[in-house]
Amino acid sequence: MNDSELLLTTPAGRAQLLRVYRDGLLEDTLRFWFPRAADLEHGGFLHCFDQDGSLVDSDKSVWAQGRMSWMLLTLYNTHERREEWLAWAKSGLEFLERHCVDTDGRMFFHVTREGRPIRKRRYAFSEAFASIAHAAHAKATGESQSAERARKYFDHFTRWNFEPGLMPPKFTDVRPMISLAPRMITLVTAQELRANLGPDEKFTAWIDRCIEEIERLFAKPDLRVVMESVAPDGRIEDHFDGRLLNPGHAIECAWFILREAKFRKDSRLTRLGCDMLDWMWERGWDKEHGGIYYFRDVNGKPVQEYWHDMKFWWPHDETIIATLLAHQLTGDIKYARWHQQVHDWAHEHFADKAHGEWFGYLQRDGCVSSTLKGNLWKSFFHHPRRQWYCWKLLEERANGSGNFPVG
Amino acid sequence: MNDSELLLTTPAGRAQLLRVYRDGLLEDTLRFWFPRAADLEHGGFLHCFDQDGSLVDSDKSVWAQGRMSWMLLTLYNTHERREEWLAWAKSGLEFLERHCVDTDGRMFFHVTREGRPIRKRRYAFSEAFASIAHAAHAKATGESQSAERARKYFDHFTRWNFEPGLMPPKFTDVRPMISLAPRMITLVTAQELRANLGPDEKFTAWIDRCIEEIERLFAKPDLRVVMESVAPDGRIEDHFDGRLLNPGHAIECAWFILREAKFRKDSRLTRLGCDMLDWMWERGWDKEHGGIYYFRDVNGKPVQEYWHDMKFWWPHDETIIATLLAHQLTGDIKYARWHQQVHDWAHEHFADKAHGEWFGYLQRDGCVSSTLKGNLWKSFFHHPRRQWYCWKLLEERANGSGNFPVG
Repeated sequence: MNDSELLLTTPAGRAQLLRVYRDGLLEDTLRFWFPRAADLEHGGFLHCFDQDGSLVDSDKSVWAQGRMSWMLLTLYNTHERREEWLAWAKSGLEFLERHCVDTDGRMFFHVTREGRPIRKRRYAFSEAFASIAHAAHAKATGESQSAERARKYFDHFTRWNFEPGLMPPKFTDVRPMISLAPRMITLVTAQELRANLGPDEKFTAWIDRCIEEIERLFAKPDLRVVMESVAPDGRIEDHFDGRLLNPGHAIECAWFILREAKFRKDSRLTRLGCDMLDWMWERGWDKEHGGIYYFRDVNGKPVQEYWHDMKFWWPHDETIIATLLAHQLTGDIKYARWHQQVHDWAHEHFADKAHGEWFGYLQRDGCVSSTLKGNLWKSFFHHPRRQWYCWKLLEERANGSGNFPVG
Repeated sequence: MNDSELLLTTPAGRAQLLRVYRDGLLEDTLRFWFPRAADLEHGGFLHCFDQDGSLVDSDKSVWAQGRMSWMLLTLYNTHERREEWLAWAKSGLEFLERHCVDTDGRMFFHVTREGRPIRKRRYAFSEAFASIAHAAHAKATGESQSAERARKYFDHFTRWNFEPGLMPPKFTDVRPMISLAPRMITLVTAQELRANLGPDEKFTAWIDRCIEEIERLFAKPDLRVVMESVAPDGRIEDHFDGRLLNPGHAIECAWFILREAKFRKDSRLTRLGCDMLDWMWERGWDKEHGGIYYFRDVNGKPVQEYWHDMKFWWPHDETIIATLLAHQLTGDIKYARWHQQVHDWAHEHFADKAHGEWFGYLQRDGCVSSTLKGNLWKSFFHHPRRQWYCWKLLEERANGSGNFPVG
């Protein structure tokens, strides 16, 4: 493709892309999920749907309750104040409060349709998603109780993840490792809380701390890589787990940093986010079949996780955001190229022409591996968040406005 | 293929197959693994090898230490008393005793090359593999300490798996489930102990109990299926986990039962094992690409596990055994057909023509997904066990002898 044909390089092309994102969200993704996901009998959201929207499992993911509430409330706050969106989100939040909190204050991971607990995990991401959902509800309604809950779950989440000795270890202390995930989720959660509850030194301090640790411990400019887990001093452990790369994760983290660069107008952070994107695009893009690999090894050795070469939906959604944001911040045409490349590949392979929305899991060559539209991991979150965020980024650029509603 | 061309139906064909299994084990599989796997510095076995035998990770699986010791000792006991096999196995057993047992008597799952613990798991399969290795060592050397250790680990294993409340639960008690795995591993472990330590009422009682529970709770003649997990009363739970089928696992369990049928000359058990094989062949064989799927759903719904449609090496090794044993016990030509079908597909797709041994992980269409020859899960076990067992079965048939060395 000639560079002049890249959609991001012309106003008409950008307007076309904006429509793809906006209409994809409002006409396709939302229509797949709602109203079918709203559980009118027990509250909260059903989300384990097959290709055609039939329910495959009535169990509920606690992550999904928070994430789906957040997404609906974000649309309510930034697009249109549709009462049904607010009502469904409220039902999700009530389900979370009523059924998903254990007696020790920590949240479950997996509950029955009625809200009886099935599984709690060592880690605590449920709390982060509940936090952003309550914050978006506070923004939507002005209710101080929601703001308090958002702060409470944020505190739970950061305490559980960063206070040594609290989280039960998966491994012995023979080879301690720390991971990117809690840092990137703390970063984006604090950004969301700042956007919806207003500025707060605590949020800024967490954002600063997480970006500093990500840059100092996980980003490796000499190797042009972002590690998924490292020794506490940032050393790479030469074992399966220590060499593991998750390109989609690192690229998602890159756009959280680019979002901060945009918010602060900080060119140093722009450089950091773009570096991380550049390195992990190079590491993650499958030059033979297209698409982003799930796992890679930093030294090019084989990975132990079975699904390492599959193509999952969410790394593609995250890379579509990251390349758009990088292009908007730098104007570098490379990002317009990559944006179109990942956008085209993903829409060609993930989109379900028959029933709408995206499939979640493709084989390496792009063939559909599973017809699931939702499960305990995939719900109304990564895909609509990408459509919403890219729509709003392009709208902001078209309007020449810096008044971007998402911080 | 014409039925008269099936290798299992003629003496010449069976002699050819016998050579494929025997020479494959002695000339190919053994030569890939040894001496490179023997850790002369720290004892025990290295096993995380890439395609060409280069070491990818120096960490050690506790499963692998027991399994590889057992395999070497079984060759020593049933084929040839090679001193190096005994010495390597002894080193594996010493490594297990010195480094792999926690202070509470339970074994670790994953240790460093030097034997420092990395991970212990809720479940206790390490103990079962240590048990059969010690039993084979007792048979090889007559050492009573090895027999005692075999019995001790068997007791640990069965107690941990069957005494309610001992094993830390993965899930809450809202939807209790029991699994096939502890029952089939108890069955085969007791069979091994009987073969190497001699008859014992306790072993027989465990074998009886496990087969009874498998038949009553997991085998569903009306649905023609063997479930992987069920409610404690055998009910199928209509959720992702409750509908899950693992055809390779169920077929492995089927040949453990057929082995018991052979040992006891019990035609009712032959019927049970053949039924389980028939059902899961029908459920597991991929009619489009060939090979055995990793997971299926009992109702044909999509499975949540990402790697559900991949082809792993071990279900193919287990199916090669099961079909051979079923043919030998029943003479039903269907099993000769299936045996050749799975044998041919597996050898065509898993065998590494460049460096020997089998790859472990193929994409659905049979393309190699990972070049690993060993990792924390794959070692010198399923593949050589199949080569050894099928060789010995065919040898027994050729000799017209019932004096089969594996019970």
